[in-house]
Amino acid sequence: MTEPYPFSTTLKVRFNETDAQGHVNFAQYLNLFDVALVEYLRHIGFSYQRMLDEDFDMLYVDAHASYSAPAYFDNLLRIHCRAGKVGDSSVRFDFEVFNESKENRLTAKGEITIVTADRKTFQKMRVPDHFRQALERQD
Amino acid sequence: MTEPYPFSTTLKVRFNETDAQGHVNFAQYLNLFDVALVEYLRHIGFSYQRMLDEDFDMLYVDAHASYSAPAYFDNLLRIHCRAGKVGDSSVRFDFEVFNESKENRLTAKGEITIVTADRKTFQKMRVPDHFRQALERQD
Amino acid sequence: MTEPYPFSTTLKVRFNETDAQGHVNFAQYLNLFDVALVEYLRHIGFSYQRMLDEDFDMLYVDAHASYSAPAYFDNLLRIHCRAGKVGDSSVRFDFEVFNESKENRLTAKGEITIVTADRKTFQKMRVPDHFRQALERQD
Amino acid sequence: MTEPYPFSTTLKVRFNETDAQGHVNFAQYLNLFDVALVEYLRHIGFSYQRMLDEDFDMLYVDAHASYSAPAYFDNLLRIHCRAGKVGDSSVRFDFEVFNESKENRLTAKGEITIVTADRKTFQKMRVPDHFRQALERQD
Repeated sequence: MTEPYPFSTTLKVRFNETDAQGHVNFAQYLNLFDVALVEYLRHIGFSYQRMLDEDFDMLYVDAHASYSAPAYFDNLLRIHCRAGKVGDSSVRFDFEVFNESKENRLTAKGEITIVTADRKTFQKMRVPDHFRQALERQD
Repeated sequence: MTEPYPFSTTLKVRFNETDAQGHVNFAQYLNLFDVALVEYLRHIGFSYQRMLDEDFDMLYVDAHASYSAPAYFDNLLRIHCRAGKVGDSSVRFDFEVFNESKENRLTAKGEITIVTADRKTFQKMRVPDHFRQALERQD
Repeated sequence: MTEPYPFSTTLKVRFNETDAQGHVNFAQYLNLFDVALVEYLRHIGFSYQRMLDEDFDMLYVDAHASYSAPAYFDNLLRIHCRAGKVGDSSVRFDFEVFNESKENRLTAKGEITIVTADRKTFQKMRVPDHFRQALERQD
Repeated sequence: MTEPYPFSTTLKVRFNETDAQGHVNFAQYLNLFDVALVEYLRHIGFSYQRMLDEDFDMLYVDAHASYSAPAYFDNLLRIHCRAGKVGDSSVRFDFEVFNESKENRLTAKGEITIVTADRKTFQKMRVPDHFRQALERQD
C-alpha cells in the first residue's frame, strides 16, 4: 500500500462464493468490495439510510479487480477500503484484500467508481458537501 | 414424471453457478427453476411485462428442491415446468431438471409456490381469471 | 419455535442479495441458511476443515424455504440453526430467520438435508459417531 | 467499436441478476462477460472440455467493467467478445454489451485478462500454439 488505508473490515468466504476451480469466483470480488464499501461509508457516518434520507444515491460507473492469489472457502479476508479520489460528481473507492488465513497474503486489489445522483431522478449531481467532507476527513 | 410436463427450456451451466465441490451449487437450482418459470409464463402468454401491465405481481412464499445427481459446468440442462396446483390466490409450479450432457439423467426436482398480489400495494389478491385460464389451458 | 434453537448467528443483507422487487431474492435464503450451517457446525466442533481431515463431506439432497416477510438491504438477520433430525446417513438441519431491523419479525424458515459421504469417493456413509454425538449434544 | 468484434452471443437478464436499484447488479456483468467468453472460445474451437483435454486452464488475473446504461429484467443483451491482445502467457479478452430491448444502446464494456496455466500444477505456461492460432484467426 503506497498510502494508508484508514478502514478495513473482515469477511469469511462463503461456499457459494467459490467455483469449480476451488476458490473464490473472480466476479465475486466486486461483491466483496461492495460489502466493504457499505461498511466504510457507515464508518464515516454515511449509512445507506442516511444517503437515502439526504436524497442521493450512488450509481456505479466503473469497477476493476486484479487477482494476486486464490482465496478458499472459510478463509478470513480483510478488505481495506478508502476514497482514492473525490471528483466533482464522482468518487473512486480503492480496495485491497488480504487473506488472514493464508499468511495475510495479498489476494486482490481493485477500484469502484461511482457518480452521485439524485435518488429520484437518477440524474448526476455534485458530491454533496457533507459527503465530500466525510470522505476527505477519513484519515 | 407421473404427469406430463407441457413445457421445457434448456440452460447451459455457467461457471459461476458451480462451487468448490465441482458442480452446481444447491441454492442455484432455485434460480434455474425461476428462469424456467419466466419462460413458461411467457409461453402461456404471460410475459412479466404483461403481468405488470395488468397490475399484478407474484410473491414467492415457498420453494423446495431435491437433488438426485450433480450437474457440471457447461452441461446442458433441460428444465420442465408446469402449474402443479392453482389455488384461490396461489399457484404451485413444479420443476424437473434433466441433464442432457449426462445421459439425460434426473438432476433435480422442486416446486415454487407464489401468491398473486397487487403490484402496487403487494396485497394478496385472487389469481386473475385470464392468468388462471392460461395456467389451466397449458396442456 | 416449538423447540429451542441452541445456536444462532447474524448476517447483514448485502446489496447483491436483493433483487428488483427491492428485497432479498428468494433463492438467496438457501445461501444464508448455508452460511449459518457452517457456523453452527464450527460451534459444535466440526469446522469444514475438520470434516475434510476426518475424510467425510456433506452432500446436499434436499432444501426447502418458506418466506413470511421480506428483508431489505442492510437489515440485520438472525439465523437460528439446529440439527432437526439425525438419521443413519443423513441429517436434516432446520433454520429460522428473524429480522432484527424489523422488530425481529420472522422472515423465513427452512430445512437443508444432507447425506454424509466419503470425501474422496462421494459414496454415502454412516454419519460418523463423533459427528452424531456432537449434533445430538447440542442442547 | 473501433475494431470489429467477430463474435457475439445473446443473454436474457435473469431476475436474480437484478438488485434493489431495479437493474442488473454491477458485479454481475463480469459473469455475463464470462458466459460470453465461454461461448466465444467454443466458437473458435476451444470448448472448456478441449482445454482440459489439452491440459491447460485459464487463471483470471484482471477484470474490468464500465457501465453506460442500466439493463433490466428480461432485457435481451447482446455481448460481443474478442481476443483483444494475445501475450506470451496471457490473453486479454474484450467485451461490449448492447441492450437489444432498449434500442440497442451500449450498456457496458470491459476486459478480462487470463494467464494460461498447466491444469494440474496451476503453473503459468505459454499460450499453447493451437490456442494462439485460433485466437488470432478469429476474424
